Amino acid sequence: MQETTQKEALKRLSYIEGHLAGIRRMIDEDKYCVDVLKQTYAVRRAIEKLEALLLDGHLHTCVVAGVREGREEQVVGELLELYELANK
Amino acid sequence: MQETTQKEALKRLSYIEGHLAGIRRMIDEDKYCVDVLKQTYAVRRAIEKLEALLLDGHLHTCVVAGVREGREEQVVGELLELYELANK
Amino acid sequence: MQETTQKEALKRLSYIEGHLAGIRRMIDEDKYCVDVLKQTYAVRRAIEKLEALLLDGHLHTCVVAGVREGREEQVVGELLELYELANK
Amino acid sequence: MQETTQKEALKRLSYIEGHLAGIRRMIDEDKYCVDVLKQTYAVRRAIEKLEALLLDGHLHTCVVAGVREGREEQVVGELLELYELANK
Repeated sequence: MQETTQKEALKRLSYIEGHLAGIRRMIDEDKYCVDVLKQTYAVRRAIEKLEALLLDGHLHTCVVAGVREGREEQVVGELLELYELANK
Repeated sequence: MQETTQKEALKRLSYIEGHLAGIRRMIDEDKYCVDVLKQTYAVRRAIEKLEALLLDGHLHTCVVAGVREGREEQVVGELLELYELANK
Repeated sequence: MQETTQKEALKRLSYIEGHLAGIRRMIDEDKYCVDVLKQTYAVRRAIEKLEALLLDGHLHTCVVAGVREGREEQVVGELLELYELANK
Repeated sequence: MQETTQKEALKRLSYIEGHLAGIRRMIDEDKYCVDVLKQTYAVRRAIEKLEALLLDGHLHTCVVAGVREGREEQVVGELLELYELANK
């Protein structure tokens, strides 16, 4: 992973952790379920943004390098596996 | 929220927090992106299970009570809003 | 289903069918995969809009009536089943 | 697109079209909304399978060729755009 990607990923992770701490407080204080659910959807969006960042780094580095080094079957296979997991 | 739902929700939240701590470690140690992404997909699944639990409780209590008390426009409106957010 | 919902649903279905006919043409003419995939994502969005319409009608009619008639276990159970299917 | 991918894609498209025709009949005959929604979710799954097939072909041919020919910025950029559209 490139250093800028790594730093940005850790920053996004901190944001998600903070968001989850807020959801924990809401459940502890027995807030209205609809409001809690709106927050969990926001966390899902934040995780998808973290994934997009990781995927961006992965495609630009490992995938390009893999194809150049003749390991296209491996890197393409991994991408298809990820696609299937993302849709499950 | 019913007490059993609340306890179960906090338990699932702890699980998600532990999972995220594991992802933080993986990023810190610069693990292979594909393996990190597989873990973020697993976190998404865990959040969806938390949401299903919260929705279950909400439908059985607030929605049923709302319809009985003549506030069906409010509770139905909220459910449609949640559906739209979930699909975004 | 109310008549306005039914008419609107059939209209949206025609739109989706037309869109799929366009995708068939693109595949027949061997268009660039990326462009075909953009269209299939648009079809997914159109199906989600059809679902939102059907769900809206269902909540306002069958669910409200079901709760009033004491069949809340049935209607709530069906909604949770749909939620699970939507997330699969 | 390779000929086998194209044939398989058209076959899956026919399946989706047939499924939609069934949904049209259900709406025409005013079937229970919950049953119609279960069918629209099945269509979503079928479209995702078509997408996985197209993506598989795209990665093995255009993406690998693009990287080899030095057009990695283009092919990687397109994949990230598709990922974002798929998550919207």
